[in-house]
Amino acid sequence: MIRAGDAILVLNAGSSSIKFELFEATAAGPASRFTGQVEGIGAAMPHFVARGADDAVLADRSWPAGGAAAGAPADHAAALGVIIAWLDGLPAPRPAVAAVGHRVVHGGPDFAAPVLLDAAVIARLRALVPLAPLHQPHNLAGIEAAAAHFPGVPQIACFDTAFHRGHPWEADTFGLPPEFHARGIRRYGFHGLSYEYIARRIAREDPALGQGRLVVAHLGNGASLCAIRAGRSVDSTMGFTALDGLPMGTRCGQIDPGVLLHLIEAEGWDTARLRRLLYHESGLKGMSGLSQDVRVLEASGRPEAARALSYFCWRARREIGAMAAALGGLDALVFTAGIGEHAAGVRARICERLDFLGVTLDPARNAAHAPEISVPGARVRVLVRATDEERMIAEHVIALLGMA
Amino acid sequence: MIRAGDAILVLNAGSSSIKFELFEATAAGPASRFTGQVEGIGAAMPHFVARGADDAVLADRSWPAGGAAAGAPADHAAALGVIIAWLDGLPAPRPAVAAVGHRVVHGGPDFAAPVLLDAAVIARLRALVPLAPLHQPHNLAGIEAAAAHFPGVPQIACFDTAFHRGHPWEADTFGLPPEFHARGIRRYGFHGLSYEYIARRIAREDPALGQGRLVVAHLGNGASLCAIRAGRSVDSTMGFTALDGLPMGTRCGQIDPGVLLHLIEAEGWDTARLRRLLYHESGLKGMSGLSQDVRVLEASGRPEAARALSYFCWRARREIGAMAAALGGLDALVFTAGIGEHAAGVRARICERLDFLGVTLDPARNAAHAPEISVPGARVRVLVRATDEERMIAEHVIALLGMA
Repeated sequence: MIRAGDAILVLNAGSSSIKFELFEATAAGPASRFTGQVEGIGAAMPHFVARGADDAVLADRSWPAGGAAAGAPADHAAALGVIIAWLDGLPAPRPAVAAVGHRVVHGGPDFAAPVLLDAAVIARLRALVPLAPLHQPHNLAGIEAAAAHFPGVPQIACFDTAFHRGHPWEADTFGLPPEFHARGIRRYGFHGLSYEYIARRIAREDPALGQGRLVVAHLGNGASLCAIRAGRSVDSTMGFTALDGLPMGTRCGQIDPGVLLHLIEAEGWDTARLRRLLYHESGLKGMSGLSQDVRVLEASGRPEAARALSYFCWRARREIGAMAAALGGLDALVFTAGIGEHAAGVRARICERLDFLGVTLDPARNAAHAPEISVPGARVRVLVRATDEERMIAEHVIALLGMA
Repeated sequence: MIRAGDAILVLNAGSSSIKFELFEATAAGPASRFTGQVEGIGAAMPHFVARGADDAVLADRSWPAGGAAAGAPADHAAALGVIIAWLDGLPAPRPAVAAVGHRVVHGGPDFAAPVLLDAAVIARLRALVPLAPLHQPHNLAGIEAAAAHFPGVPQIACFDTAFHRGHPWEADTFGLPPEFHARGIRRYGFHGLSYEYIARRIAREDPALGQGRLVVAHLGNGASLCAIRAGRSVDSTMGFTALDGLPMGTRCGQIDPGVLLHLIEAEGWDTARLRRLLYHESGLKGMSGLSQDVRVLEASGRPEAARALSYFCWRARREIGAMAAALGGLDALVFTAGIGEHAAGVRARICERLDFLGVTLDPARNAAHAPEISVPGARVRVLVRATDEERMIAEHVIALLGMA
């Protein structure tokens, strides 16, 4: 049970970083108090930064080259120790951490909602490591570190896959024999915490639209689309892994499986090389040979940079058409995440031939990143909203534990 | 130069079969005279059948078990010999074969139109074998057999990829570094002869519509979609190989590349096993565990059969939305090939949530396989047309050689 004034610590543990956000539970919902992260865990020069709710930097610390011997955090437990020591050093009254919410990339076929962590659940999450080898182990390291630092404090896992678990069967399977679906080779979909946050936010702002048909474009370093009807995910462009669907910062997105067979058979590649290519050397960065940063690409005169952006927009437009077909039509298109919230040029190019769906942008509103960037009275409303996965996790924690 | 009355032999050589169609050149275009095939080349019991233009069976021959020793055709040259011996035995006046047109699956990045075959061109086609290892060698075997049987007769290759070579760059590339595109790892697209035939036929029937935006659904044992604007292919669901895009009779269609990495790394699969799964044990047959024949699946009470059909229709509908987005809207949807021409139930299910595009089927017309199955006055016309890749090849042969 959460009480007003309790602190909820939200953790997002990646391969070499832990991001945190500390919320205070209030009658009006979680209120953000502090955010920050430790980056470069295990690397030469780790770095810790913390900010207040007003975004002011409250702490900024680097460790000299030399690593752990110089006191630098060498693993996730030590990095969490840095965060907690900083929180403990804040002036009174310090909110007591009453619960910890964790972002966990993979909930497998079964976890369709957040779950209170215990040894049995952690074992089930560990069994999912082969499905997300790049993320799940770090999520679990964050959970173990938090359990050690906060004995007796409830730990809750919130999954990037859970929001998609209500997909119709056709959107959950590949065209393989049924035994593959049965043993977990499915289209899980990801970015679910972001989509759930956006869907709830739209429903709060406009209950009628919340019952309608939305395509949400989560365009960040990772990128996907989600088709949402009446607040529930119906389809998504991401499949079994975070590779599929739209091109991303460094990931290829949709690719013919025959390309992999060809590179292995005709060119002697192994899977380590394929992973490096498909996860780290493709997408905006690999296509441009320059950067995964849309601003850098837009400012560049290189034709490869223009082509990378053009491909990104073409594929997004194509898949918006596919998501609209999954929904049987479209009431609103919502852009979110780094590129979606800030790249007006990308939004304009994605929308430029979607008038057949009823999408018509207002150029001035789009350039100003207005909350609504479609022309007044457009058949499809086009919205820009900041996503907030950490807040979604805090809301899940309160909902799961109950508010006194 | 082709003269009226000349015969044009069209050959389509597969792994264990050669299909043929003999056309007579007339002032009104190629007129079909005979069709037929040798099946089971190199197998225990080869089988030859030939039909007249009225579809009447004119020859039907099997060889007893025992193979070549019993006179059965053991390779493509021998099979072509069976076909030619039968043609030579027809009662006079026998049209003389003035040209041979070959269906060739892969024209690579360069062949954007049919080409007269010579040693240099054949060498270039042989270099494309790694791009289509299952088809290209058999196409080449058919070309060699025909060249030996018809010395001095012009041989023309018509490519399944050529119609797509005008794709905008965004539809021709994957999200990989540019050097992959440069060395031929591209979205080639296939079924081009079928799409070109349909596009020309629609343009002849209705020149205004021929200038419009078409999505053609070639739904046969292989299946893909093509987005066509003003008679030219703009995008297609097939990519580098015949695996990608829609689920098919035994092929998976679109799949997350991470599934392949997972099966190799976590389950120890090799590419031979992956090929077998993705090409031969998936799609309608693999999903149903029963058959790739839509009629069998529709008649079956098994839930897996219903699910396989449901998946097929869901994916086709989703990709029609994607192709419409590539075109910026839709004027007509054309169904063709075995399933497209004959499976009214599949057409109905694909179209059932496409009303947002302006697609509205007339159930009675659809059940009757009428040439136009949309309701009168529908914003998007929905058509059913028989495809005829062999006639397209004969037309290409006449166009390339000229008609006296």
